[in-house]
Amino acid sequence: MSTFREDGAAALEWVASYLERVRELPVLARTKPGEIRTALPPSPPERGEPFSDVLRDLDEILLPGVTHWQSPRFFAYFATTGSEPGILGELLTAGLNNVGFVWRTSPALTELERHVLDWLAQLLGLPAGLHGHIEDTASVSTVAALAAARDARPDRRVVVFSEHANVAVEKAARTVGLEPRRVPVDDVYRMRTDGLSVSDACAVVATVGTTSTASVDPVPALAELCEREGVWLHVDAAYAGAAWVCPELRASLEGVERADSIVVNAHKWLLTPQDCSCLWTRRPEDFRRVFAVGGAPYLPGDPAESLSDYGPALGRRFRALKLWLVLRHFGREGLQRAIREHVRLAALFEDWVRLEHGWEVVAPRHFSVVCFRREGSDEENEALLERVNASGEVFLSQTRLDGRYVLRLAVGNVRTTEDDVRVAWDVLRREASEL
Amino acid sequence: MSTFREDGAAALEWVASYLERVRELPVLARTKPGEIRTALPPSPPERGEPFSDVLRDLDEILLPGVTHWQSPRFFAYFATTGSEPGILGELLTAGLNNVGFVWRTSPALTELERHVLDWLAQLLGLPAGLHGHIEDTASVSTVAALAAARDARPDRRVVVFSEHANVAVEKAARTVGLEPRRVPVDDVYRMRTDGLSVSDACAVVATVGTTSTASVDPVPALAELCEREGVWLHVDAAYAGAAWVCPELRASLEGVERADSIVVNAHKWLLTPQDCSCLWTRRPEDFRRVFAVGGAPYLPGDPAESLSDYGPALGRRFRALKLWLVLRHFGREGLQRAIREHVRLAALFEDWVRLEHGWEVVAPRHFSVVCFRREGSDEENEALLERVNASGEVFLSQTRLDGRYVLRLAVGNVRTTEDDVRVAWDVLRREASEL
Repeated sequence: MSTFREDGAAALEWVASYLERVRELPVLARTKPGEIRTALPPSPPERGEPFSDVLRDLDEILLPGVTHWQSPRFFAYFATTGSEPGILGELLTAGLNNVGFVWRTSPALTELERHVLDWLAQLLGLPAGLHGHIEDTASVSTVAALAAARDARPDRRVVVFSEHANVAVEKAARTVGLEPRRVPVDDVYRMRTDGLSVSDACAVVATVGTTSTASVDPVPALAELCEREGVWLHVDAAYAGAAWVCPELRASLEGVERADSIVVNAHKWLLTPQDCSCLWTRRPEDFRRVFAVGGAPYLPGDPAESLSDYGPALGRRFRALKLWLVLRHFGREGLQRAIREHVRLAALFEDWVRLEHGWEVVAPRHFSVVCFRREGSDEENEALLERVNASGEVFLSQTRLDGRYVLRLAVGNVRTTEDDVRVAWDVLRREASEL
Repeated sequence: MSTFREDGAAALEWVASYLERVRELPVLARTKPGEIRTALPPSPPERGEPFSDVLRDLDEILLPGVTHWQSPRFFAYFATTGSEPGILGELLTAGLNNVGFVWRTSPALTELERHVLDWLAQLLGLPAGLHGHIEDTASVSTVAALAAARDARPDRRVVVFSEHANVAVEKAARTVGLEPRRVPVDDVYRMRTDGLSVSDACAVVATVGTTSTASVDPVPALAELCEREGVWLHVDAAYAGAAWVCPELRASLEGVERADSIVVNAHKWLLTPQDCSCLWTRRPEDFRRVFAVGGAPYLPGDPAESLSDYGPALGRRFRALKLWLVLRHFGREGLQRAIREHVRLAALFEDWVRLEHGWEVVAPRHFSVVCFRREGSDEENEALLERVNASGEVFLSQTRLDGRYVLRLAVGNVRTTEDDVRVAWDVLRREASEL
């Protein structure tokens, strides 16, 4: 155990110093495809090696190939935070190494998972009485929901979602063997409901916070339609659901109380490390119909609920522990402070873009995502983004809206300051002027 | 960061001291359903709380509800090990908090994942050239394989597996919308192939190391049949595949080279913490047909392969890091030593049972699993197991074979010594004599 204490202290110091210096590292990895593999031995070691050798290789071989999601200057996709209590939660989880496939194999895992999902439902203003559990990703949460919806309406094989829904929804539909149907959006990227027919669908997926623009589908109208046609409504709020922790950001919560299932990823905007996708449902029996296999002679009747009855995986790790640590470390107040600051910074950036000649904001800003571009062609904007990201100073990503190439800035790291956002804006203008 | 260093040192010390004292803790949790939830506040905190408060509650509220998978006296299900390098791997993974949905979002994650799966394939004696990646659980690995098999043969809707296959296989079949068909086993719990027709099946799942007895299905005969009928062969070696690291334990590897997909859980018998399910295939294009959605405007063409194209989840955490640390810490030699010792201890326990009047071994021992019972009724054996587990000294589980209640002892923790196995045997005999 002395080795563990010593190696552990080195690993901990590695993480602490990484978090201290991450702002200075090139945000987007500069490695070429295959370079890392070439630097690694083609065969595994015959004999054990000291931990210090591995930490050295982490620095020398792997780190140049890491895109720094923990950087406060990471503004791509949905920016996230692996916060300190969450990181230590993963250490404790691995130390305990519990496997919660039934209640008795870890009552603490099962009960804490239900409990923190109830806590989080309260924080987000979700209805009381929902059944909550954790999956690894929103993709798998959606697999679970769509399989439940499919078997609740076996006569129907179609899943309806907007052309701006995340590709994970299409993956989920394909995984469970359903037919994905993308429907058009209106001029601000919300699913159109005029003329929408869902009578052959077993499920509709509404997105709160789409991946390109963070737009919000008209959940109340979709809930109305789904109730009329007997269709399962799944709300994908993987990113933006976190905003509901702030009462002033709950306009997008309207109608969500009528959903059959709801997913919010704590690992996106709730300061929790990968992976922690929170799934709630008011139809737990429909999940059990698919996933509760029961009756195995090696897993006889357990005295309490097994969370493996609600999703594809039989085994489950103790993911609730890190979420518990995060919720206790920040409290409601700390989560609100982080979300509000991110929204403030995005709004500030939006203002800078609006006021600057030759730049435009190209979609309504929602939450902490700004879609914008520089005047000129798609090729010029693409070249601009490549120069910005090649600088290593910041990392932004892109999308396409109405056929045009668009830049995206997303704020989501708890260590991001106004100065970091200003650096992004300075780098963008500098590179634009040098193009 | 000073708080992180301080809290981190406390968390690390918590894990180190937990591992030192875990042998003395009651292995199976003694809590009653609901007790843990009752001890937790019904609502989340408004304000942040110090880390020390959370560690205190971990000790006082959660720990009594933990079943100690890390105990060297845990002999239930498949016993596992969250080894020290694996634990520190999870700390580093959470510190980096990478999300590898495409190559550029973390080249290191993607390339190390492919690389360590190649290393592990070499260690296990799998054919060269397989495509490997990591899923969270064998359940989800099987979901991925069965979805690929389903879409490769869309005219067929049946999945064939033995009545001794893990329930996770049935869950996976249901998840992807296929019809599970359990077929009988022979007198030593291997899938029967005489008269077996698979002409309406899109997939057969063969198990190497079934959950009750660790029996091995006749993979060569099944491979023959599958090739003849154009059926996908998936080999579930979640537990026993680890044994292939030892050349003398490779009888069960015969025919596996003809499988279309193979799953081995590093988190079962390869000393890696949850979750690390390793999936190899020689038909990667069939996985991509289902899971590669591509073309999203916010995820434009990436210069190298994305591992999310091979399974249901779009997001993925840096699971390869812990496996890399484990393989480097132990090397081939260290892994072989652990596996051989576990097999030796199981064989020793088997001998003790055989030689003791009034006890019997009820299935051939495979790998590190012994199925046995005491003379007397099922009720007496069940009462015996309950007394043994209630003692807190050890934890064993049970199954049913040919209608009879059977006790199981599985060795899989790297800290388990001959003395620990002897304690299990002593407790069993003591409790039997007091019944």
